[in-house]
Order: sequence, then C-alpha cells, then structure tokens
Amino acid sequence: MHTIKGIPIAKGIAHGPVRVIHDTSMEAVERLDCNADDEIQIFHDARIKAIGEIEAIRLNTKKNIGEQESKIFEAHQSILEDPELIGQVEAYILEKACCAEWALTVVGNRIRAIFEAMDNAYMKERAIDIKDITCRVVNLIMGHYSDVGPIDEPYVLVAHDLTPSQTSTLETKYVKGIITEVGGKTAHSAIIATLLKIPYVVVEKGTALLKDGDEVVFDGREGSVIVGPDQNCLDAYHEKERLLLLEEEKYASLRGKACKTQDHIEVELIANISQIKDLDFIIKSDARSVGLFRTEFIFMDQDRLPTEDEQYEIYKKITTAMSQGYVTIRTLDIGGDKESPLFDIPKEDNPFLGYRGIRLCLEEVEIFKTQLRAILRASVHGKIKIMFPMIASLTEIRQAKSILETCKQALDLEGKTYDKAIEVGIMIETPAAVVMADVFAKEVDFFSIGTNDLIQYTMAVDRSNLKISALYSQYDPAVLRNMKIIAEAANKENISVSICGEAAADIKLLPYWLGIGIHKLSMSVALIPEVKWTISQMTSTQGIEVVEALSKAGDVREVLKGLDLTAL
Amino acid sequence: MHTIKGIPIAKGIAHGPVRVIHDTSMEAVERLDCNADDEIQIFHDARIKAIGEIEAIRLNTKKNIGEQESKIFEAHQSILEDPELIGQVEAYILEKACCAEWALTVVGNRIRAIFEAMDNAYMKERAIDIKDITCRVVNLIMGHYSDVGPIDEPYVLVAHDLTPSQTSTLETKYVKGIITEVGGKTAHSAIIATLLKIPYVVVEKGTALLKDGDEVVFDGREGSVIVGPDQNCLDAYHEKERLLLLEEEKYASLRGKACKTQDHIEVELIANISQIKDLDFIIKSDARSVGLFRTEFIFMDQDRLPTEDEQYEIYKKITTAMSQGYVTIRTLDIGGDKESPLFDIPKEDNPFLGYRGIRLCLEEVEIFKTQLRAILRASVHGKIKIMFPMIASLTEIRQAKSILETCKQALDLEGKTYDKAIEVGIMIETPAAVVMADVFAKEVDFFSIGTNDLIQYTMAVDRSNLKISALYSQYDPAVLRNMKIIAEAANKENISVSICGEAAADIKLLPYWLGIGIHKLSMSVALIPEVKWTISQMTSTQGIEVVEALSKAGDVREVLKGLDLTAL
Repeated sequence: MHTIKGIPIAKGIAHGPVRVIHDTSMEAVERLDCNADDEIQIFHDARIKAIGEIEAIRLNTKKNIGEQESKIFEAHQSILEDPELIGQVEAYILEKACCAEWALTVVGNRIRAIFEAMDNAYMKERAIDIKDITCRVVNLIMGHYSDVGPIDEPYVLVAHDLTPSQTSTLETKYVKGIITEVGGKTAHSAIIATLLKIPYVVVEKGTALLKDGDEVVFDGREGSVIVGPDQNCLDAYHEKERLLLLEEEKYASLRGKACKTQDHIEVELIANISQIKDLDFIIKSDARSVGLFRTEFIFMDQDRLPTEDEQYEIYKKITTAMSQGYVTIRTLDIGGDKESPLFDIPKEDNPFLGYRGIRLCLEEVEIFKTQLRAILRASVHGKIKIMFPMIASLTEIRQAKSILETCKQALDLEGKTYDKAIEVGIMIETPAAVVMADVFAKEVDFFSIGTNDLIQYTMAVDRSNLKISALYSQYDPAVLRNMKIIAEAANKENISVSICGEAAADIKLLPYWLGIGIHKLSMSVALIPEVKWTISQMTSTQGIEVVEALSKAGDVREVLKGLDLTAL
Repeated sequence: MHTIKGIPIAKGIAHGPVRVIHDTSMEAVERLDCNADDEIQIFHDARIKAIGEIEAIRLNTKKNIGEQESKIFEAHQSILEDPELIGQVEAYILEKACCAEWALTVVGNRIRAIFEAMDNAYMKERAIDIKDITCRVVNLIMGHYSDVGPIDEPYVLVAHDLTPSQTSTLETKYVKGIITEVGGKTAHSAIIATLLKIPYVVVEKGTALLKDGDEVVFDGREGSVIVGPDQNCLDAYHEKERLLLLEEEKYASLRGKACKTQDHIEVELIANISQIKDLDFIIKSDARSVGLFRTEFIFMDQDRLPTEDEQYEIYKKITTAMSQGYVTIRTLDIGGDKESPLFDIPKEDNPFLGYRGIRLCLEEVEIFKTQLRAILRASVHGKIKIMFPMIASLTEIRQAKSILETCKQALDLEGKTYDKAIEVGIMIETPAAVVMADVFAKEVDFFSIGTNDLIQYTMAVDRSNLKISALYSQYDPAVLRNMKIIAEAANKENISVSICGEAAADIKLLPYWLGIGIHKLSMSVALIPEVKWTISQMTSTQGIEVVEALSKAGDVREVLKGLDLTAL
C-alpha cells in the first residue's frame, strides 16, 4: 500500500482496478532484422481490429450523441482502408525489415506532415485524425488500450488526458473513477465527470506511476490516490462514501424549494451549459434558468460552419426546455484554449492574450451576424438574453450592439419576429472591464463575471500552468477586490450581476458574494445542491462582516484568515 | 514608384538600396540527378567561406562587445569543421545525387533533432546554433546574404527579424535604415536602433515584398516605405530630414539643464538600460540616474550562471559611472518572452502568463541570493535601489524582502559592507498590483510602473500579437485609470513613483502623467531630448485639465479626444 499525490477535481469515492489508456505515438521503437512478411501480417491484423474498434465507437456515438458526431469515425475507418497508406507501410517494412509499429509510425508522421503543411485549417485538423488512427493501430500492436472500449467490469480509468468525445462515451456503469495527468476543475472533462458523478483526480505522470490491474482507491475531494489499499484503508473509504451519501440526501431535501438564507434573502442559482446534450442534466436539476450557455460546441468537431437554421434549432430547443426561466446565450467565444479548424486563428505565442471571443466575432462579422440572427429568431420561444464574451473596451460593446441592431433591422424587413426587448449583457473577465465597470454598466443590461479568466488576467497567471498554480487563486485579495468593484458598479446602475466562473460555487466564498451584493450564481448543475444547502444555513449579515474585514485589512493574510473563519 | 504599408518603430529618414537577409533553412529544395562531385565541391566552398564570414563576425564582436560574447562564434566555426557533419553531408550527396543545399538541410535537421531531443536546456540551445550555421552555408550556396557582413556602401537592411547580436554588430556608418517583418517598439532591436539613430519600420512580409537592390525611402515616424521613389518624392523626404535635424538642434539647446515645465515643476528624466555595453550612451546622455537597469543580459548568451563576483563587477561599473545619481537595479526578470538556457523553464502555452520574474527567483533562491549579494556589495560604490519585477501578491513582496534580509545578515557576518539603507521597490505591472497598490505602497520604498506589461495584462492582449494590436494601447481609459490608481496610492504613502515602460516617453501623455502626480520618467536615453523639450513647453495645469476630463467622462471617445487636444 502506498500513496500517490493528486489534485482533487470531482468529488466521490473511487475504488477498483486501474486501466491505463496510452497515447503512444512516440513510444514505438525501431526494431530491425524483423521478418517482413510477419510484420506485414501483424500490421494488417491490427489494422482490421482497429476498424472494428472504431465501428463500436461509431455506433455508440451515433446512439448516445448523434448522427452528425458519429461521421468522423467513418472517415477514420476509410483512412485505415486507404491503399496509399497500406502501400507505404508495406513498402517501408519490406525495405527496412523493421517492425510494423515503427513502419506505421514513420508513415503516419509522413502523412501528418503533409496535412500539417497545408495552409488550410481543416486539413491541419485532419493531421490530428491521422495521429489518432495510427496511435490506435500502434497501441493494438503493442498491446496497449487506446480508449475505454467496451469493458463489462468496474475499473478506474487512467489516461494522459481525456478528449471531450472520450469523456462523453464513458460507460458510467463501469467507470468508477478517472485519473488524468493534465486538466483542471474547469476543463470540460471535469464538468462532465461531476455531472456523471464520477470521482476524478489529476495525478502527474499517472500513466507511468500506475499499471493495468493496480487496485486503487481515492477521494475526489482530497486528491491522493492509494495504491493496493489494505482492509483498514478500504473500510475508512467506505465510511467516507457513506457520509457522502448522507450529505447528498440532506441536499436532496431542499430540491424544488427556493434558495434563501436564514434571514430570507433569495439567491438565484442558475446553470452553466457547454453542450446541448447536457440539457437532460439541466432539466432534471434544480436550476430554472441558464446563466451561461456556451455556444462553442456548435462550431467545433465539424468541417463547416453551422447554418443560421441549425443554430436556431439548438437555441430553440434549449429555450423551449427552460420555459420557466430564461437562457443567457453567450456568443461565440472561440480562441484562447478553445480551437476550431473553422477559423483562421494564427498560431499565437500567448493564446490566452490573443485573438479570441468578441475580438474574433467583430472581425468575422458574417459569422457573428448568423449567430445573432439565430438567437434573435429563437427568442420568440422563451426568454433569451444575449451575452458578449472577452469585452475589454467600450468600442467593442458598441460595435457588437450595433451589429445586433443591424440584424434586428434585417429581420424586421424580412418580417421575422423576435423579442424586441431582448436583454444584452457582457462577460466581465478582463481587468480593463473591471476598472471600466462603472462606464460599461451604463451600456448594457447585465454583467456576468467570468472568474476563471478574470483571475488569470488579474494575477497574470495561466490557469492551466501547474508551475505557478499557487498564484491562481480566487482567494487572492486582488481578485476579491475586483469582484467588489464590479458588483458595486452594477448595483449602482441597477443592472443585474452574476458570477458564472467556477468561483460562483465556492462554498467558502458564498458569504462574500452575498456581502458585496451578488445574488445570482451560475454554475454546473452538479454543484447546485451543495451550494443551495450552504446558503440555506447562512445569514446575509455574515457576508457583510466578511466584506468589512476585507476593506479594513491592510494585511492580506488577515483577510484570508477572516475568510477561512466563515467556512461552513 | 509604389508604397508598402509599415509600422513606425524608430524615427529618422532612411534612403538607400535594399539588402535582404534571408532565413532560409526551409527554402532549400531537393534537386536530384546532380553531379555528386560538383555538389560536394560546392558544399566545401560554401563551408570554408562561412568559416571566414564567422571569423569576421567573431573579431568584430570581440572588438565591439567583448571576449566572452565572441566565444560562441569559435564554437560555430568548429562545428563547420566537424568530420561527422562533413561526412554525413558528403554521404548523403553521394547516396542521393542531390544538390548540396538539400543534403546540408537534411543533415542539419537530423543533428538538430538529436540536440532538441536531449533533456537539457543548454543542449537544446545548441540546436539553434546548428540551425544558424547550416542556414549560413545554405545561404552561401543559394546566393543569399546571412547577415549584414562587411559592406562598405550605404544600404537599407531588410530581414525577418534581428537578433540582439545581429543588431549590435550593425555598422552604423552603412546601415541607413532597418526593415523587419516582426518586432515592436519595445523590442531590444528597436531600442538599439533608436540609440544608434537608425530609422526603423516593421513591414509584414518585407523580405518577400522587397528585393536586393530596390531603392527605398521611408520615415521611421510614419511607417510607409516608398519603393523606387521619383525625384519629387526624394525631395520631400530630404526636406523632412532637414526639419528633423532642426528639431534635434532645438532639443540640444536644453542639454545639461534641469527638466522643468513653464511653471517650474521639475520632472526627473532617467535612463532605462538593458546592456552594460550601452553605458556609453548613458554617460553621453542627459540622464543622471538609471530608473531601470535590466539584468537579464548577464544571464543570457552564455552556458553557465554568472558568479557573484562577475555580477558585482557589472553593478559596480554602472554604479560608479552614475556617481551623480542612483541606479535602480531590477532583479532577474527572465521568462515570458525572455528565454535563457540556464533555467529550467517548462514549455508554456502562455509564457506571458507564466513562470517569470519574481516567480522564478523565489523558487531558484540560490540564484536570487547570489544576485542580491552582488547588488548589496556594489551598493558601497554609489547609490543603488533594488527593484523586484512581476509582483502580483503581498506574499511575494515579503518573501523577496525576507531573502534580501537573509543576504544582509550573511554579509554582516562575513564583515562585508553595503548600504544599510538601500531602498527596495517593486514594478507595478500586473493588474493585481494595481488593485492592491494601496496595500503594497506600505511595504516598499518606491513603485516603478512597467507600462508594457501592465497594458498587456489590463487589456488581456499579447503586445506582440499583430492581429489584435489595436487593443494594445496606452490611450485606453482602462490603462489610464490604472495609472492614476497607482500614482495616487504611491503619493498617499509618500513613496516615489515612476514610469519605466515605453509610455513614459509618450509625448501626448506627458500632461496626463504630470496631472496624476508622476514626476519621474525612465526611458531609453535616445528619447530624453524630445521629452525634455516638450515638458519645457508645458504648464503643469494642462495636466490637471486632462485628468479632470478623464474622470468626468462617461464616454471613452470623449476622453481620447481630450487627450488628442493636448498633443503638442
């Protein structure tokens, strides 16, 4: 029994044997003096087996996600049947008398290089497909797993990283826990794991430290992973699990009730959504409105831009489903760490300080207009609010609003209806927007604070950079002061203000949010029950005390101590 | 005659024939069916010629820069005489019957890959050397220039980019102007060009748009490049040049006098220095003190860390030279866009939001202590102030000060003397430091505002990203408000505040700086004469008017208009 250090991501107790998914494109080693005929046979066996694996994924995706999303796997299969690829691998084996996995690695890299060299974002994306496919075949030859695959016994998944599509094909019945080497609480895989209630931790070098079959147990709230636990240890974890279940029952008792403090101050808890396929989770949850509907997924994972009608259908679907409340649709926020082959985003040295969000939309005006028209048209099916991301200047707000106005006029001329009083708001996530909040508040109907980016820019720390992660903190007084400045500016102009970053659901900070006058919190619906319970145990005066402590304190450590005291 | 759009970098009128420096590692094309013997001969001819070229650079560097800096070129020469390299190129030509430039490109890439794969920053750096060297030989074979080289007639240099070492070997007698494809006003090459009074503009795709021998003329304050100017055009530019010279004369009339407004408010103009070799420029200038002595150069371009004594000598030299004033030494600010093979800086997705400045020093404590000891010891030779870069939290300030205290105690024990009252200050360049300025001001003796980074973080815009360069602006009201917050916090605590970013010398903003209470500006000494002249024509009340306009304005455009009105 030994312990490996990890970072907590999604709560719950995980227990089971490990299954490691390797990303092995670089692991193949050149072995020479092989029997070429044997190696060619090995190649073909693995190739055929890979086509079969992909078929299973394709069918699973088609069933659980959608027809459109499954098409990529047909393309993957046809690449594996491509005579050019097959011919090159065979020729290389024959020429060098090398092993099959090496020949495939060389040929795969060669083909990838051709795609990568093309001055076309879509073709460049295809280079990634080639890598995925050759990896899978190399894995099969070397006896590694490429993905979760159909396994009918419980296991703990260990991988370098999970792609959103991998995460969404997880069989929750069998995946008892997730360990990845990279990622964070804000990654999509983390959000999905939370929704699916799969315990999740990040362990550096996890795929090297853990081997297939290792028995592990961990608590997703703590991070540490126990390998080969003894009975005492297992008993302790089972007790934790029992307590967790009791907690969930306690939370469940508040379902359907309004979220109020002890002194009857109401706090609106609303949902963040990243994918229309998460709609089920939302409908089943306690949230009546959507505070952040991310629209990037509509523009990713496909080879062309979505049409106005396709977008309209998606916005209509979510708006109709949330008929009791409203849906805040954030316009396209591509760029930064979110890439899409559909946009000509230059290779950037610092993508988080780059061409992203509203910056891109104000240049790609036609794409922006298509989205705005689709949103406007969907606004007849329920209450929609429009939100612009990454605002850093008044000019951007005015340009975006003016383009929206143009879209409205065009719809008027076409005789198409929309909500004429549709509310327009902005994300507050740049330091510029904080210091200009009083001015910006006069221009829009609401603010939504994106704490993930705001912390990153305020502290000048890439939130995914582990080396300096200590500086990335929502408890830093600089961040907390900025939050107060924003809330005061919004409340002074009488516009709505909410938080939609991860910090919205931070239990320790709830008194502070209330204290500075934020009564609307948007979060992953999985987090709502605990937040609701916590608020129901608080009084609003606790918040005011925390804020006073902060404003008086010259010493930051005092402030932090004060905050810790309010932890419930 | 036609015009190419460019970005102004360093002022002055440039006129002359173009000489294009190619970076051609990727330009060699595979030509087969060559005569192998001929190609091998071509390879050797170019190789020998390259060794000669490098010898000239080595001697020039030794003479103008220093013995230490010239050593790298000896290494370059020995690589070109390496039997392994020569053997591989010859073998490749013989095997493929391909052209010499292609064989060298293939072999060079192969060797580079080996160096790059090593888990050692110094070895990785050597991969760049291999690239430089093979490029040079390929250039010679293909008839391109690799560098400025010894030319004894005037020309306008065109290149993709200039390395600091290329810039420092420029023969000012012959280089009449510089055009690069990348870079900005804050790049070291821009600073050197300004100091050397070489007009400089950035032109995207300049090496493709311009050909050797093209006659060009441009004004470094405007940006546009005229190709093949007619006589009228040349006359116009000569007139501009005449006016520029008159301006310089006007500025020269104030030399040696104090810098004061019309109403006798004194403004201290001090120097930024990046290299000890720029000391000559400083001594000859009007600056009596150094507001920013960057120490990164001591840690770059060599294969080991500088010792305490080596650093002490450098700090002593600059401090002794500035005996009439003081020298503000900024502790090591490596990371971000400043790389050094001596540090284990992980590959980062967003280096500007990464492991840099004080963050690195607080981890590499021994390196930090060595620098602090060297600075302390040098403080007996004149007045030194210590400045910490990239501060984002109070914890960092206290940790850095505590390490400084430890160094003082150690020196006390060793019986070594230093200035016991040495002042300690911080750079204000993160948004966190702005919002915490009132707290930080209680902890230090002075603030120095690094506007280059501050603008970048406030606006969330990488300052070198051309795609979004419009957002990177010192005129943005968010930036101007932040400057005011900092100045007020410093003045309230009665500590000194200066600006050491590029905006310090912005003529249009001088009234604003005075208006918010900043009376100390640190800049490249080349900019001091114009700034001094401008201030001498101003009254301090103009500044107060500008600040009032800003604080009242709800509309940003109004503010900007107001600022434009104050342009002198």
